[in-house]
Amino acid sequence: MASTTQPNLPKGVRDFPPEVMYRRQQIFSTIRAVFEKFGFQPLETPSIELLSVLTGKYGDEGDQLLFRILRSGDFLAKTKAEDYEAGSRQMLSKIAEKGLRYDLTVPFARFVTKNRGQLTFPFKRYQMQPVWRADRPQKGRYQEFYQCDADVIGTESLLCEAEILAMMVEVLTQLRIPGFEIKVNHRKILAGLAETLGAAERESELFVVIDKLDKIGLDGVKSELTDRGFPQATLEKLPVFLTLEGSNEAKLSQLAHAFAGTQSGAMGLAEMSKILTLARQLGIPLDQVSYDLGLARGLSYYTGAIFEVKVAASSIGSISGGGRYADLTGTFGYHGLSGVGFSFGIDRIYDVMEEFDLFEQTQLTGTQVIIAAMDEAAFAYALPILSELRSAGIRTELYPESAKLKKQLNYADKKAISYALIVGSEEVNNDQITLKDLKTGIQSQISRRQIAKRLSELNVSATNGM
Amino acid sequence: MASTTQPNLPKGVRDFPPEVMYRRQQIFSTIRAVFEKFGFQPLETPSIELLSVLTGKYGDEGDQLLFRILRSGDFLAKTKAEDYEAGSRQMLSKIAEKGLRYDLTVPFARFVTKNRGQLTFPFKRYQMQPVWRADRPQKGRYQEFYQCDADVIGTESLLCEAEILAMMVEVLTQLRIPGFEIKVNHRKILAGLAETLGAAERESELFVVIDKLDKIGLDGVKSELTDRGFPQATLEKLPVFLTLEGSNEAKLSQLAHAFAGTQSGAMGLAEMSKILTLARQLGIPLDQVSYDLGLARGLSYYTGAIFEVKVAASSIGSISGGGRYADLTGTFGYHGLSGVGFSFGIDRIYDVMEEFDLFEQTQLTGTQVIIAAMDEAAFAYALPILSELRSAGIRTELYPESAKLKKQLNYADKKAISYALIVGSEEVNNDQITLKDLKTGIQSQISRRQIAKRLSELNVSATNGM
Repeated sequence: MASTTQPNLPKGVRDFPPEVMYRRQQIFSTIRAVFEKFGFQPLETPSIELLSVLTGKYGDEGDQLLFRILRSGDFLAKTKAEDYEAGSRQMLSKIAEKGLRYDLTVPFARFVTKNRGQLTFPFKRYQMQPVWRADRPQKGRYQEFYQCDADVIGTESLLCEAEILAMMVEVLTQLRIPGFEIKVNHRKILAGLAETLGAAERESELFVVIDKLDKIGLDGVKSELTDRGFPQATLEKLPVFLTLEGSNEAKLSQLAHAFAGTQSGAMGLAEMSKILTLARQLGIPLDQVSYDLGLARGLSYYTGAIFEVKVAASSIGSISGGGRYADLTGTFGYHGLSGVGFSFGIDRIYDVMEEFDLFEQTQLTGTQVIIAAMDEAAFAYALPILSELRSAGIRTELYPESAKLKKQLNYADKKAISYALIVGSEEVNNDQITLKDLKTGIQSQISRRQIAKRLSELNVSATNGM
Repeated sequence: MASTTQPNLPKGVRDFPPEVMYRRQQIFSTIRAVFEKFGFQPLETPSIELLSVLTGKYGDEGDQLLFRILRSGDFLAKTKAEDYEAGSRQMLSKIAEKGLRYDLTVPFARFVTKNRGQLTFPFKRYQMQPVWRADRPQKGRYQEFYQCDADVIGTESLLCEAEILAMMVEVLTQLRIPGFEIKVNHRKILAGLAETLGAAERESELFVVIDKLDKIGLDGVKSELTDRGFPQATLEKLPVFLTLEGSNEAKLSQLAHAFAGTQSGAMGLAEMSKILTLARQLGIPLDQVSYDLGLARGLSYYTGAIFEVKVAASSIGSISGGGRYADLTGTFGYHGLSGVGFSFGIDRIYDVMEEFDLFEQTQLTGTQVIIAAMDEAAFAYALPILSELRSAGIRTELYPESAKLKKQLNYADKKAISYALIVGSEEVNNDQITLKDLKTGIQSQISRRQIAKRLSELNVSATNGM
């Protein structure tokens, strides 16, 4: 089996070894606790969905990135030679009917539609599961990665938007992410802007160009809009909007003047203003949320507020984002349910935390104490101590073999274990154990009966790290 | 899109709605905490592995149950018309190179082989992730299900076997599984038995027949062995082995006499005996582990001790099992690493717990308090209360819309929320809140400032449910 003697992973997927798992679990458990504090309930959907559910939801590009699962058994049974001649596209629907989920939103919409009779609305769920995309692998982009989504469906209440802002602030503050910026905007404000600029029909194109402001400047934006054939009126009115200044309220009030009369613009401004008021009432620090007219994400599906979080001091892009969609389950024929949701990008949050060295040094759930037995007799002597410490909830290991102390302590070091109890023939004879602090190297002799007490003085005790 | 208006799930996969998730999380977190107390570290491997890693590891039947992922893009590019003519088997290797993992053991072996330079042995890892099998779906058998594995690799120490028994006992005791039975046996004892019976070459076949003892009786077993052409000597010596009685020690000592001289039998007996001694020294109640010569699982890969757990009073099969394999990574060309591991069957444990009504009634991580606001003014009045309770770590929701009290309390009921704080215009005017115990229906008036205090008296406080 020469081909398998160096077993590799497919490109774009990763193992998460223990040291990485501990850090990821820290992020997951922080997010989970905040989601639950805000009343979101856990949901899991299967990795595998019917292609009829998945396709057509993410645009042509998304469809191409779906991982498709080959039918089991004789998968060619339903095909004919003509299908083969016609090529991959023709064959596809006959040899694959299932695929791996591409995100958590479409499975959520499928779940809500399928179970609408049983669910109580508003339905608040969170979901933390992997998704798969057959993207070209590159640094920071993977074919399998986790999403952490929270959505409320079945209410138009703007409290939900404000609570999303509160959850973003709480999670990122708890993780000590420095200088994060939450940007908010509203789809209807963008519609009002496009209308005011006389470009209502070319909204997406307009915002693609405006998005380049930071890079190419106002003159650059104007010249590209001219090249693309936008009317002169657009160019003339534009600068007012790109020079908004002051507090969020000040910006919204400047826009209110400038819009004067576009219906969707006024509606968007009113909602945006209400969301910010609610956020303030929920105690969110004002300086962490800023209104940004330039934020224009997910225009093809969001219909209300939109959110995005970046870390100013990091080159890593958006670490969280979301928005409101008026008709999430409409694609499955179940209309009229408005929802709002957002997602944390776990991998990017991990990268930011690594960049700023924010992971707690202590492994919250790793082994706390190792017992190192020097010979057979010591091993037997150590067994009841092992049970005793575990009964006290202390995560304890007895090195399973008789090995040199150096080897055992090296093992403890690799597992970042804090304390060693060393048992040799002398210790057995005197009913005394050597306790070694593996960080400082300091050793002391303690009596067999004092072990639990001494460890508890050292704060080594039962913890619920998760 | 008529085909998607009733969005379905593929057969054999499931959604886990919140009420099921809470229960599953209870099982997962119990297992996780015990694994970690015993020094096992978390590992996750990707769902997708190369088919070169997966195939040939599970026998022909297993290979057929692998879910294969179609190549992205023009997947027919590497095929020719002759391949199509030749059929599915010929096409397979050209249109698919990746598959979904079938278990957690092969990915673990792949991980260990790939990272052997970085790992410190003995390496103790646990892994709780879904696996996929294209099995025919039926009650209790799914195409996607979780496995919870713990393995130690890189040591032959029998302490590991004893610790596995201890972990089984601790998890199942914590989950309050009634009357579970841990059966143990040893591959080498079975080899000694086959040798003694003069059937060393036909071991597997012998044990398939012996396994039917409960169903067909001793005479039935004898007659089937005769039909299969086993020698007369086998039939004559058999009864001694099938009538072992007494304690584990007594059974092993009866076997020691009967084996008299088979080398592997003696070795197996010595190891089995040592494991049981270590288990006793670790404080495992003797009545929960029983030696069973009839246990013969995984003969094709286990080389030492084997374990299996059943619940006597339930018709649900094995809920946990495992064993030692002398050369786990040998299949990837990395020889000489002995390992021992076991797995909990989450779905079966769930079914047993449901059967015996063992799930805790309290949702450990669900919303604790709902605030029901009766009008706009009450809603605004409630916002700071909401923040205050959440800051105290209490999982709290404010119903997001102005709705009738009945609707709001119905929502609370569906989410199994324990307490409601009801705020109407009267409450706002008097700075008094109505606190309702949603289990008993008892209401009381409390002052605005007393809310946190009163809830804490009721034991509604920050908890870390995970």
